[in-house]
Amino acid sequence: MRRRGGRPPQGQPVVERAFALLRSFDSGRRAQTLGELARRSGIPRSSALRLARTLVGVGALERLDDGRFVVGLRLLETASLAPRGHGLRAVAMPFMEDLFHVTRQHVLLAVREQAEALLVERLSALDAGPVRYRVGGRLPLASTGVGLVLLAFAPPAVQDRAVAAHRPGEGDDRLHAPSDLRRALAEVRRGDYAHGHQSHPGPMSTVAAPVRDGRAVVAALSVVAPSSGFPDAGYGPAVRATARAISRRLAEEAGRAGPPAEGRLP
Amino acid sequence: MRRRGGRPPQGQPVVERAFALLRSFDSGRRAQTLGELARRSGIPRSSALRLARTLVGVGALERLDDGRFVVGLRLLETASLAPRGHGLRAVAMPFMEDLFHVTRQHVLLAVREQAEALLVERLSALDAGPVRYRVGGRLPLASTGVGLVLLAFAPPAVQDRAVAAHRPGEGDDRLHAPSDLRRALAEVRRGDYAHGHQSHPGPMSTVAAPVRDGRAVVAALSVVAPSSGFPDAGYGPAVRATARAISRRLAEEAGRAGPPAEGRLP
Repeated sequence: MRRRGGRPPQGQPVVERAFALLRSFDSGRRAQTLGELARRSGIPRSSALRLARTLVGVGALERLDDGRFVVGLRLLETASLAPRGHGLRAVAMPFMEDLFHVTRQHVLLAVREQAEALLVERLSALDAGPVRYRVGGRLPLASTGVGLVLLAFAPPAVQDRAVAAHRPGEGDDRLHAPSDLRRALAEVRRGDYAHGHQSHPGPMSTVAAPVRDGRAVVAALSVVAPSSGFPDAGYGPAVRATARAISRRLAEEAGRAGPPAEGRLP
Repeated sequence: MRRRGGRPPQGQPVVERAFALLRSFDSGRRAQTLGELARRSGIPRSSALRLARTLVGVGALERLDDGRFVVGLRLLETASLAPRGHGLRAVAMPFMEDLFHVTRQHVLLAVREQAEALLVERLSALDAGPVRYRVGGRLPLASTGVGLVLLAFAPPAVQDRAVAAHRPGEGDDRLHAPSDLRRALAEVRRGDYAHGHQSHPGPMSTVAAPVRDGRAVVAALSVVAPSSGFPDAGYGPAVRATARAISRRLAEEAGRAGPPAEGRLP
């Protein structure tokens, strides 16, 4: 099924096949046998083995004692240089720490990646309520606080597609119809923050605010907490003030020559 | 110079060249022009452009408005699945938060990658003293607290090479000669923790302790703080207790079927 209707994977350039192999890992599948790798990536077993060995050679994969493959630590070393990921994170992290210190709830930082959000950082106390999202993982734009902020400041075409695709019952309790989502996005732009409430899996509330780099919205920051005792009036200003502090630091960074703050540490 | 005495880079398999291109980025060089990419990776300009376009296509690179290339956010998405990186981090993070909350100093989590340590996580307050190391970056084994712990529990061959390569004046103030390092490693194994003091760039102290997964030492945890007022007797037990708490959780995870904790969140 996977290969019907498209160019067969073995016809792809080898670099693309290598990344198809890397993308076959996900949070529920962090270790895979050669057979699983081949099946999930649609690459014939012999090619998959050759590619996997090359990827082990460059450190993008590692092999466990039991022969299964896992994503390699050296890939994290390169990936940590992504300006929109750890570069942003390096600037935001101390401010996020302070927000976490004050709230002791989930503190999230996300950026938009096409029609989804990608979670760059999450701080969570051991006893904080469960959340669905992991660092490096994706979140829906239309049903999370950070997603609503990112979507509200996305290009109109991205918003139009998200509104058209919106289905009742998805995400936030208040957003039943596409027009509700359209209205919510306008509210976010007007107030410069988003708030949201979900009933499933448990009643959770969130406040999110935009982070700017002096020119555009580049990320969104939020606090997520159980709805019982979620003091909107308390978390809201804290989240918004922290997002502004991060924005000010990012704008300072952008105004300077040279690498971002972390690269300049002694 | 770069190409003398070895196989010329254009003779490498294309996947290896793609990763050579990705490795040409570092913390001081997060954005590169095509010319810089070609020069730093040793790949001819026309091949470098073709490769860079392919890497943009799979999201491993992104192109800025000014035409320069940066590491792409989607690489972070895959890299975050590395069990030795974010997998470990997901389990350790809440405990690290608590340690950070108590100390308000730098809290570091590192793993060994061959003859160096790789920093998986660092929590730092806005007003904490400067540290040299960034998340995803490398640290020397013989001159950092986390490094000494990782080295003390590394295979004998790795220790022998590190001791043989040790030069006076490198790293910790007390470790002048190879024999000092050898003795320090024995002390770490005996006490199950490391402490260290450096004078440069400023007087900093550290206490580090091993993190185990039920079978072996898989990481090291430390607190790093200015030496003035570094209460060894206070931070030491806190670091060691936290490392044990992370170890216990890791052992529980290892004893269960299925993906690590974060993958199981609702």
